[in-house]
Amino acid sequence: MKALFVEETVNKISEEVELFGWAETIRDHKKIVFIDLRDSSGVVQLVGGADLSVISPEDVLRIKGTVKARPDNLVNDKISTGKVEVTVKDWEILSKAETLPFEISGDNLNVTLPVLLNYRALSLRNPKIKAIFEIQEIVIDSFRNGLKEKQFTEFQSPVIIPQPAEGGAEVFEVKYFDYKAYLAQSPQFYKQIMVGVFERVFTVSKTLRAEPSVTTRHLTEATTLDAEFGFIDSWEEIMAMAEYIIKFILKEVNERGGEALKHYGLESLSIPKEIPRLKLREAQKIIFERTGRDNQQEPDLEPEDEREISKWATEKHGTGFVFITHYPVAKRPFYTYEDPEDLGYTLSFDLIGYGMELMTGGQRIHQLDKLVENAQARNIDLQRSELYLQAFRYGMPPEGGFSFGSERIVMGILGLANVREASLFPRDMERIDVHLPTLYGKDKK
Amino acid sequence: MKALFVEETVNKISEEVELFGWAETIRDHKKIVFIDLRDSSGVVQLVGGADLSVISPEDVLRIKGTVKARPDNLVNDKISTGKVEVTVKDWEILSKAETLPFEISGDNLNVTLPVLLNYRALSLRNPKIKAIFEIQEIVIDSFRNGLKEKQFTEFQSPVIIPQPAEGGAEVFEVKYFDYKAYLAQSPQFYKQIMVGVFERVFTVSKTLRAEPSVTTRHLTEATTLDAEFGFIDSWEEIMAMAEYIIKFILKEVNERGGEALKHYGLESLSIPKEIPRLKLREAQKIIFERTGRDNQQEPDLEPEDEREISKWATEKHGTGFVFITHYPVAKRPFYTYEDPEDLGYTLSFDLIGYGMELMTGGQRIHQLDKLVENAQARNIDLQRSELYLQAFRYGMPPEGGFSFGSERIVMGILGLANVREASLFPRDMERIDVHLPTLYGKDKK
Repeated sequence: MKALFVEETVNKISEEVELFGWAETIRDHKKIVFIDLRDSSGVVQLVGGADLSVISPEDVLRIKGTVKARPDNLVNDKISTGKVEVTVKDWEILSKAETLPFEISGDNLNVTLPVLLNYRALSLRNPKIKAIFEIQEIVIDSFRNGLKEKQFTEFQSPVIIPQPAEGGAEVFEVKYFDYKAYLAQSPQFYKQIMVGVFERVFTVSKTLRAEPSVTTRHLTEATTLDAEFGFIDSWEEIMAMAEYIIKFILKEVNERGGEALKHYGLESLSIPKEIPRLKLREAQKIIFERTGRDNQQEPDLEPEDEREISKWATEKHGTGFVFITHYPVAKRPFYTYEDPEDLGYTLSFDLIGYGMELMTGGQRIHQLDKLVENAQARNIDLQRSELYLQAFRYGMPPEGGFSFGSERIVMGILGLANVREASLFPRDMERIDVHLPTLYGKDKK
Repeated sequence: MKALFVEETVNKISEEVELFGWAETIRDHKKIVFIDLRDSSGVVQLVGGADLSVISPEDVLRIKGTVKARPDNLVNDKISTGKVEVTVKDWEILSKAETLPFEISGDNLNVTLPVLLNYRALSLRNPKIKAIFEIQEIVIDSFRNGLKEKQFTEFQSPVIIPQPAEGGAEVFEVKYFDYKAYLAQSPQFYKQIMVGVFERVFTVSKTLRAEPSVTTRHLTEATTLDAEFGFIDSWEEIMAMAEYIIKFILKEVNERGGEALKHYGLESLSIPKEIPRLKLREAQKIIFERTGRDNQQEPDLEPEDEREISKWATEKHGTGFVFITHYPVAKRPFYTYEDPEDLGYTLSFDLIGYGMELMTGGQRIHQLDKLVENAQARNIDLQRSELYLQAFRYGMPPEGGFSFGSERIVMGILGLANVREASLFPRDMERIDVHLPTLYGKDKK
């Protein structure tokens, strides 16, 4: 196994080293050839003779050479190994690459998103694109670490479910032996069950939604971060926990993701001091007053409303984050707790940030009778959700939680235009790795 | 939110405390009532008057009381709070439980596994059952931590795939808009693609297999731990990494899971010094010599062979773990590397431990031509696996990896009789939370 990553060459000046990686770019000056050798740690410049000119981009190389300090006037500040280069003594192509369909080095790839996705195995190697998933890893990791510090337990939520959790819209169906089964749209029922077991739980799970449209904000498969906890005194504790974890994540991204952020022109992320809270009706009034757009009768915010209220929060509170609370009962799932002091409205919230909805949460009904009554009123069949009902039948504390997509928040953090960019292998109604209509044409299969 | 967990009462002697939890057991002596109050940290004994006798098992309680040291002769060594009890001053039932279908306290529940699963939301609250998932959390956590120490990057592998990765057997089909899609049986193709991006990767993913039989060792949905890495000098490095991570996990279980292990009569897990390695043919010869059972022409080990070779390793090497290597080419997936020094056999291994197969791994073919040739020879269609082929087309280093189910290893660690016990919500051909034939009878839906 390789002993040295290219980034470590800066500490090996005058030493003989063996390096392994990919030829990222080749600058062939005939008698002298420069190669940027890339591995998972970064890039280092190789210098060799004309024999190196047979090497092509993405060839996999084994290199032996000597690390040399570059003269001051040739130091490259843009890369962490910019003060050194490696004079090649011996080299070998471990694996030869075919001619690339497009140039994959540099921060400005001159190709459209569909092309990047058609060549995903290749385009992911681009350092700027790869950086997106370094950020995603930090987001997920710090979600876990932040909640563990608050005595939360991680659990594994199922993908195959017996019954859609919140009615049947936009759910994928699975042929399950002789039965019909479904793919989980959320771990909602399971995280509530687990509150009965561990009190405070979280799960990182795949959520699958048959989104029937192709938009820049929706995926059919997402990696979703869910938390749920019991023994709350007030539903505001749920927002407080959500605020804590968002701040924790942003802080960790700043501490560990500096190199990745740089690719997106970011020095560090702005962390809100305190996230303001508005009832939906208050937010709609503010939007009306600012824009003249009157959506005050709507049960939810439109995307342009989300951008506007995020802008308002930035101007008024110095942060683009804002909690919108008290959505109408009819607009929230059947298990959402109604505010006894504001009937018709729920103890629920969305977190808006980066001009869009990032997170949703709220207090849940923990009384079995009320829960069953609500489900019946909405014609939601819970026959196969017996385990969910059990959790309430045998004693459930007051509880609540929140949920957010890892892709959506990474999209916000990095200012990506399309959520597909924030998914390693994005799926939508036309794409599962490959573009399905291209492959099948009109004769869909 | 609650400020104090019951376990913390040991540090609060003579103080007034507020506690929240579930009434686990009630011992009603008429004038005096003892209640074991359970929360996620453990159990503490409450002492109160006759008014407490209205409380039933699993009622959710808010308690105010005074922590008192127990007299020496009444100390309970079995629980961490055994030196104290709480004299109840004020109490409230936050949520009333219905009569339980069976007693859920204690380490010996007198019910069958199907009943435990039919009442999973309740049975998971039993401390011995809950302990299984504390161990699972530690296993998954330490898999992550151990590999991060070796410069591995975590990635999110998809659940919905365009094409079964290794041929079509036992794959679930999904209705994907107007197309057919499938559920991932393993993250194999994706982890190999990601070696081209991050060199060393791992993923914790859901793997779905339409196992057409109900056995004690198979689930249709598992949480699987996969690692894959490039720039290997020899395939033996893959086994070395597998050995490292298994030892790392067992060490962490010992350090963090002591309380959970105790429920299963375990003080600590035995950690192998060095895991022996045998070719399949050598193992079969040993088994033949020990038992007279001649499976030397078989391409794989039977369950009873696995038990026998694990027994042999225990006697001969002081560990029940043993790597079995060099399975025949025909028996391994098309991407498995053939041993150039032992043609017809592969550079692949299974890890046997606790008398069963725990893990599988090996070196992969990294040359596109050979890979495509092998797939064609086995009639494996890779048309929709274009991204996988790209990874090799554009330069892939020599690489390999391994995979193991989190449920299977937890089953081994705790000596569980059935792998369903090690899955929070086990799925098999007859069960998705509920028992499907009971619900639907002969009229399957």
